[in-house]
Amino acid sequence: MSDLKSVLDAYRDGSTTYEETVQRISQVENQMAEATTIDHDRHRRTGSAEVIYAEFKTPEQVIKAFKSIQDSGQNVLATRVKQDAFDLLSSEIEGVEFFESARIACWKGGDHQPDTPATSIGIVTAGTSDLPVAEEAAVTAEFYGNKTERIFDVGVAGVHRLLRRVDRIRTCRIVVVVAGMEGALPSVVGGLVDKPVIAVPTSVGYGAAFNGIAALLGMLTSCASGVSVVNIDNGFGAGFLANIINRL
Amino acid sequence: MSDLKSVLDAYRDGSTTYEETVQRISQVENQMAEATTIDHDRHRRTGSAEVIYAEFKTPEQVIKAFKSIQDSGQNVLATRVKQDAFDLLSSEIEGVEFFESARIACWKGGDHQPDTPATSIGIVTAGTSDLPVAEEAAVTAEFYGNKTERIFDVGVAGVHRLLRRVDRIRTCRIVVVVAGMEGALPSVVGGLVDKPVIAVPTSVGYGAAFNGIAALLGMLTSCASGVSVVNIDNGFGAGFLANIINRL
Amino acid sequence: MSDLKSVLDAYRDGSTTYEETVQRISQVENQMAEATTIDHDRHRRTGSAEVIYAEFKTPEQVIKAFKSIQDSGQNVLATRVKQDAFDLLSSEIEGVEFFESARIACWKGGDHQPDTPATSIGIVTAGTSDLPVAEEAAVTAEFYGNKTERIFDVGVAGVHRLLRRVDRIRTCRIVVVVAGMEGALPSVVGGLVDKPVIAVPTSVGYGAAFNGIAALLGMLTSCASGVSVVNIDNGFGAGFLANIINRL
Amino acid sequence: MSDLKSVLDAYRDGSTTYEETVQRISQVENQMAEATTIDHDRHRRTGSAEVIYAEFKTPEQVIKAFKSIQDSGQNVLATRVKQDAFDLLSSEIEGVEFFESARIACWKGGDHQPDTPATSIGIVTAGTSDLPVAEEAAVTAEFYGNKTERIFDVGVAGVHRLLRRVDRIRTCRIVVVVAGMEGALPSVVGGLVDKPVIAVPTSVGYGAAFNGIAALLGMLTSCASGVSVVNIDNGFGAGFLANIINRL
Amino acid sequence: MSDLKSVLDAYRDGSTTYEETVQRISQVENQMAEATTIDHDRHRRTGSAEVIYAEFKTPEQVIKAFKSIQDSGQNVLATRVKQDAFDLLSSEIEGVEFFESARIACWKGGDHQPDTPATSIGIVTAGTSDLPVAEEAAVTAEFYGNKTERIFDVGVAGVHRLLRRVDRIRTCRIVVVVAGMEGALPSVVGGLVDKPVIAVPTSVGYGAAFNGIAALLGMLTSCASGVSVVNIDNGFGAGFLANIINRL
Amino acid sequence: MSDLKSVLDAYRDGSTTYEETVQRISQVENQMAEATTIDHDRHRRTGSAEVIYAEFKTPEQVIKAFKSIQDSGQNVLATRVKQDAFDLLSSEIEGVEFFESARIACWKGGDHQPDTPATSIGIVTAGTSDLPVAEEAAVTAEFYGNKTERIFDVGVAGVHRLLRRVDRIRTCRIVVVVAGMEGALPSVVGGLVDKPVIAVPTSVGYGAAFNGIAALLGMLTSCASGVSVVNIDNGFGAGFLANIINRL
Amino acid sequence: MSDLKSVLDAYRDGSTTYEETVQRISQVENQMAEATTIDHDRHRRTGSAEVIYAEFKTPEQVIKAFKSIQDSGQNVLATRVKQDAFDLLSSEIEGVEFFESARIACWKGGDHQPDTPATSIGIVTAGTSDLPVAEEAAVTAEFYGNKTERIFDVGVAGVHRLLRRVDRIRTCRIVVVVAGMEGALPSVVGGLVDKPVIAVPTSVGYGAAFNGIAALLGMLTSCASGVSVVNIDNGFGAGFLANIINRL
Amino acid sequence: MSDLKSVLDAYRDGSTTYEETVQRISQVENQMAEATTIDHDRHRRTGSAEVIYAEFKTPEQVIKAFKSIQDSGQNVLATRVKQDAFDLLSSEIEGVEFFESARIACWKGGDHQPDTPATSIGIVTAGTSDLPVAEEAAVTAEFYGNKTERIFDVGVAGVHRLLRRVDRIRTCRIVVVVAGMEGALPSVVGGLVDKPVIAVPTSVGYGAAFNGIAALLGMLTSCASGVSVVNIDNGFGAGFLANIINRL
Repeated sequence: MSDLKSVLDAYRDGSTTYEETVQRISQVENQMAEATTIDHDRHRRTGSAEVIYAEFKTPEQVIKAFKSIQDSGQNVLATRVKQDAFDLLSSEIEGVEFFESARIACWKGGDHQPDTPATSIGIVTAGTSDLPVAEEAAVTAEFYGNKTERIFDVGVAGVHRLLRRVDRIRTCRIVVVVAGMEGALPSVVGGLVDKPVIAVPTSVGYGAAFNGIAALLGMLTSCASGVSVVNIDNGFGAGFLANIINRL
Repeated sequence: MSDLKSVLDAYRDGSTTYEETVQRISQVENQMAEATTIDHDRHRRTGSAEVIYAEFKTPEQVIKAFKSIQDSGQNVLATRVKQDAFDLLSSEIEGVEFFESARIACWKGGDHQPDTPATSIGIVTAGTSDLPVAEEAAVTAEFYGNKTERIFDVGVAGVHRLLRRVDRIRTCRIVVVVAGMEGALPSVVGGLVDKPVIAVPTSVGYGAAFNGIAALLGMLTSCASGVSVVNIDNGFGAGFLANIINRL
Repeated sequence: MSDLKSVLDAYRDGSTTYEETVQRISQVENQMAEATTIDHDRHRRTGSAEVIYAEFKTPEQVIKAFKSIQDSGQNVLATRVKQDAFDLLSSEIEGVEFFESARIACWKGGDHQPDTPATSIGIVTAGTSDLPVAEEAAVTAEFYGNKTERIFDVGVAGVHRLLRRVDRIRTCRIVVVVAGMEGALPSVVGGLVDKPVIAVPTSVGYGAAFNGIAALLGMLTSCASGVSVVNIDNGFGAGFLANIINRL
Repeated sequence: MSDLKSVLDAYRDGSTTYEETVQRISQVENQMAEATTIDHDRHRRTGSAEVIYAEFKTPEQVIKAFKSIQDSGQNVLATRVKQDAFDLLSSEIEGVEFFESARIACWKGGDHQPDTPATSIGIVTAGTSDLPVAEEAAVTAEFYGNKTERIFDVGVAGVHRLLRRVDRIRTCRIVVVVAGMEGALPSVVGGLVDKPVIAVPTSVGYGAAFNGIAALLGMLTSCASGVSVVNIDNGFGAGFLANIINRL
Repeated sequence: MSDLKSVLDAYRDGSTTYEETVQRISQVENQMAEATTIDHDRHRRTGSAEVIYAEFKTPEQVIKAFKSIQDSGQNVLATRVKQDAFDLLSSEIEGVEFFESARIACWKGGDHQPDTPATSIGIVTAGTSDLPVAEEAAVTAEFYGNKTERIFDVGVAGVHRLLRRVDRIRTCRIVVVVAGMEGALPSVVGGLVDKPVIAVPTSVGYGAAFNGIAALLGMLTSCASGVSVVNIDNGFGAGFLANIINRL
Repeated sequence: MSDLKSVLDAYRDGSTTYEETVQRISQVENQMAEATTIDHDRHRRTGSAEVIYAEFKTPEQVIKAFKSIQDSGQNVLATRVKQDAFDLLSSEIEGVEFFESARIACWKGGDHQPDTPATSIGIVTAGTSDLPVAEEAAVTAEFYGNKTERIFDVGVAGVHRLLRRVDRIRTCRIVVVVAGMEGALPSVVGGLVDKPVIAVPTSVGYGAAFNGIAALLGMLTSCASGVSVVNIDNGFGAGFLANIINRL
Repeated sequence: MSDLKSVLDAYRDGSTTYEETVQRISQVENQMAEATTIDHDRHRRTGSAEVIYAEFKTPEQVIKAFKSIQDSGQNVLATRVKQDAFDLLSSEIEGVEFFESARIACWKGGDHQPDTPATSIGIVTAGTSDLPVAEEAAVTAEFYGNKTERIFDVGVAGVHRLLRRVDRIRTCRIVVVVAGMEGALPSVVGGLVDKPVIAVPTSVGYGAAFNGIAALLGMLTSCASGVSVVNIDNGFGAGFLANIINRL
Repeated sequence: MSDLKSVLDAYRDGSTTYEETVQRISQVENQMAEATTIDHDRHRRTGSAEVIYAEFKTPEQVIKAFKSIQDSGQNVLATRVKQDAFDLLSSEIEGVEFFESARIACWKGGDHQPDTPATSIGIVTAGTSDLPVAEEAAVTAEFYGNKTERIFDVGVAGVHRLLRRVDRIRTCRIVVVVAGMEGALPSVVGGLVDKPVIAVPTSVGYGAAFNGIAALLGMLTSCASGVSVVNIDNGFGAGFLANIINRL
């Protein structure tokens, strides 16, 4: 933090007035504040990586953002990447990985790689239609260095399929539960495990599913304790939060 | 149906013109239509009883309606009866029965009593707060002559409590499932039995439960087949429908 | 169930300890639970058939699922099948049947065929736009072995059209009523027959119809007793439930 | 309109300048505009009467407004009047009439009385709970000099009760149809008569009735032509509009 | 009504029993009921014409329905007709007329033509985007034989444009007011004229306009009396109702 | 800002190290930041006053907060004050003023009084029921030193009443328009004046007014430019914002 | 205003009767009213320009409206202009300017140009996806002659980025804050500056963002005073209002 | 688990058949399943305690449930306890503690006491009205043995108040953020710390706050990563989940 020091020393040796010094401190403070808060935190918590939300971006905008982060020496994660952006990325960037059903593109050649926590993150889904959101959560968690345990297609209308997997779910430190339609799975899982459950409603369904509202309301009013909820289809958010908790 | 006969015979013996006859037939038809359709049907399907929805009625209005049905020789069922109407009814009508948690008052001294189907109706609830609605369904079903099987407090957050009762539920011919909050219980029950499930959302819950909307949407979008839904808190409707199905 | 027997016998003859036996029983139980609950139930109640919801699946995914069920010796029912999946199925699978307006493809060459109940299922619609949903219900019911009675285009704005068909409707054991817009038909039908009415709201309409919400709310708040409701446009669900009730 | 004349004459005889005249015309115009538009219209169309919406007013405010209109020589109509305002009005104003179920208080001693159109206004209701709103419509229509025809309690779940009254309804020039819950009655009535139907949704019902929203949506999406809708519980608005149409 | 006569005469001359006669009367009654109620009414009130709602129909379905009504000797009105149906109709049916902005196709060569009421129907719009709905109302009213008065583009943000046209509006017997966005125009018009106002909310607008909900709610809660509302974008319904009122 | 100076001077004269200085600067900065941002701003923009939102507070909590601000030498404004808090305040605090319909209590004996801008703030309402919200806006604006111009009861159903007052409205620098029900008044006012319009929807109305939602949506989708909106019933917010704009 | 004069003089010299004069004054008044209110105001407040909302217009309609305003000698602003209309405008109109991300086309060759206020308008955005709406606001403000200060990408999840720019924001006379998702930025900005804040919710986001509803509700319920809100995505409205305030 | 052993041993010594044994194992399994899953889990994760949701219970029901848990030797926690239940509990149960603003009653005299994790749980609130919900979270967390750090009244409209407390918040292992109105605080906190944030929307606010919906949507769509949400006003759920995470 040599900048602040030079400001102070300029005051000490009389080359700046008090008023000038106050103003210069203010400038330095602002820079420090941002640097400290944003960059430092992000590095610590994410294992050095920036994230690109590609949904509303053109392929050109995606690749520009991608390279910019890459150039700073960090790993890169891009979510909601469409086929045309996939194609452009793969033709221009070496070592980019694709996860089609997760709609994620990433590059892990950064200067610092995240370490791998000892415990796994469970990713549980109700039906096959929930798979893209579940994969977004799983690939995100893995990108940040975590091991994951996928337990798919255990919807509540066939509860014994779930019961058979309870032991595997219990080995995880935190469980992401992805479900559309009535969104009941987190309630059942939450009653079976004593781990934090992150519920992800999906927009799967029709009619009174209202693009995920039925699932969202169902998860928010879950009769099981230990359940919290993220936005509809927000697989990334669940994977990101699971990573934070898994590293506590 | 002597009225129609007398109309026709008056035409046959020439005492009325064709035009007069057409007009008189129309009058008779209208009376027949109503009589046939409404009264006859109701007797056949309900085991001779009229129903009073007492929610918005004064005690005086309830007792007046009560006596009017009683005088016609039918059994009487009144739902959503409040304490003050309870008190008035019990002081004025002999043999009236009260079901406090169901908020039902009924009188079974009518001229014709319903027979009792061989099979039972299951009434399953998620939590104790759903009890009044469940009791409304159960007492209604019993009023119409059915045996019921109460399986209470088997919410999905403790799924083994439900599993222990599956055998009892499977003995029933039809299952009424009552649940508030996320309303997930019908999905789980529907996956465990091969009987029709009538789902009743309740207004139990707070916040995003939105007075039963979360449960209602959850039940409508249930991933289990064989589930249909009635209005929020409509225990009577579920019990009534279960009676119809149980008598098929 | 030789597995459990061998586990018990191994204990009986002393080749396993009590602890080992408990653990092995647990494994066997889990397998039994799933087998018993899911497969057995499904066979009993559906007349041996699995169902594919094709709406969000590619033609390749549909045909893969189709063949997989076919190979297990069961009949196959696929709903919400689009033209391209239709075309692929017909070119690859012999004996597949198409119901275009119902958007259903099915194959009935399974090892076990459902028997046919003596009574019919009525399918009643308000307008011609409700036809695809009504056909989905009817073809589903027929797939499971039921006879159906189609009474179409009897919307409440021309109530005499409905009255003329009441006798036909009354011959059915259960009535599926399909309606969009204000969804009033189940109320009128429910007042005319003493059979269970399954109401199916459709997304037909515009403006304040809100893609089926007006019809859904209208059906849930029906002033007729004996009416229950399934999800918007859920013709399959109604046909499936009608089959269960018709077999009671 | 002597005021404008005196302004013009002052200009004619040179006692005011052009500029002054323009300004004075503007003032007079504004007064004329309001007088012409508001008062004149109101007299012509309502049979000389002002209306007080008493719902959110104290008894003192109601009586003050009441007397003020009375003093201007007009008849007075107050809607949504509560018991305490009733009591105060009756003790202070001679000749005030009360319509308890309609929640209307009125005084008909004004200088000009409306004539009575030859044709009647029909007021049709689905159930007894809709009665207060129906009475508000009927009493309003009668206050403005119309004859009314009340046809109550003909809900669509007993459609023959309605059919028996069709002839009476057809004698009316316009029909106000009042219904809560699913609000289906206007569709059925609209299909039976060739008169304009004013549909009034009521807040009667519970659960998915959502305080009249289900009925409102049902009426807006009615499959019958010739139906228009007013606000939930707006009996006054329907009666007022019926009066206008009946006088065309 | 020779059918009923022959039934009665058969009874009179003894060729049928009473029981047979009752059954045959029932059949005749049903046919009469439908004929009388539906067809007769429709003729009287609409000036002999059937209506086709073409929105969800293929060109082939539209032309088939079109020809069927034409063959019965009636005028034909088709609403929400798309370009491809336009093209097919014009190539196959002589004398078909097109109203492009109204999206209406019609044929007026039927056996009976409606007479023209002496009074006009006013069609008032807020903005140019509301024009298609307004034209649907106007062309519908004209199809049924009415004269119309179009007063377009007089939105409330420029209230003097409206005031200049008040005299023209007042010459009409009934006023259809079409508006999107905040839907305030019916309130202002309703305060200026003493005629019935039919308000048509349109789906014009974005954001909080919610596809016509803002306009719909605004019109339902209008502070002006004498206003009723039809469904969002329902120009046909408004024109049809205006025709009925104009013929009273 | 002697604190920072002493920190810097301590560094200059060597009595603190660089590290200590950085830490002490940080502490001072934080205090400065809050002081500068919050207090300073508030003083400048509001004419030295804190505000108490009394709706959910007990009389004791209100008076405690009231005295605390008073003791700091500032004027005090309390909104949504109920009668019992009114009574307690008047018995304990000298010089407190009450504005009953505005539900505001205030005390203006602070050390610094706001100056009075040359221009007025217009407060326009649609109906008498909107008065409490309008008064809250007006009294708030006056508390901060502004002159106001009240133009009440000029709803759009009687547009000439509004036109007569346009000249008075145009003398104001900014106009607050308060309306419930359809909330159309801001659109009409916004089309008549070239001043910023702050629209305040009120919860006045019933049925489809939905406690202010109809008015809110109507104002957000206003076809007039120059209109912005605050929360339902937020008279304080409108008066506060009008004060800021009036002082620009 | 020679027209009115000639009317009055015709009365003065006796060539018209009083009745004729009244009628002619009415005609002149109407013309004056419109001219005065609409055109005059618009010129004064907007710096002489008409606005075209191009969203639902064809390129041909846009260019026709564009030329019509141009021919009247005014500057022209067209918002929500799509690429094809862009192309047509540039090929046909000399001097037209394009702002692609703002989707605005304008022409500033009118007879009167707006002067430039001394103070700037701040345009603050939360994220890059909000840019089109923010640019619409900025370009609109600039079109009317204002200087703007763009402070982009300072969302609340990185609050120090915002704090660094507070000094720049404080130099502005009014601040437009554009944000989607949770719409929290106006609350934070409103707490940091003592200037009016115009909040613009955007439809950016997915799931529970509900196309801008989450942001809209967040802004309406902001805990910061001095904030008002315009419609979702209404960048033009915010820029227009900011111009009015900046010219006070 | 002597029961299962005796079943097996009965088989081993031949006193039961294989079929009998299978049936008896099934009974034992069911009992084991429930015991294992529910009780065991609950003990492990909550520090041995059952919870009573007292909102809809009478004082008598609360005390009965309270004693029942107490008698089983566990600690007891009752939430949403009203004054009358408070009073009864304190008169009948020794050692019961009250937390009035949290509306919690608890008893900590159970056989097993939870240990205290090394790290604290942060409880952050926006305004004083959010205090009851925040206290419910804090007291719940403390009941389960956790240390808490209360940081109250740091709403986003005064962001420097929050910044001053960031260091304290960063000492916590997990942060519960409670906010009503626009619910923006979790976004700002989530951007400042690298810990999991549990957001609790409260029903504080009026108008467009819609009893917590605005806050709920704002939190679900938060632009900050690492944030998940529980139901409106669900302080208990947040405290309970925080306990689980803090013990990982």
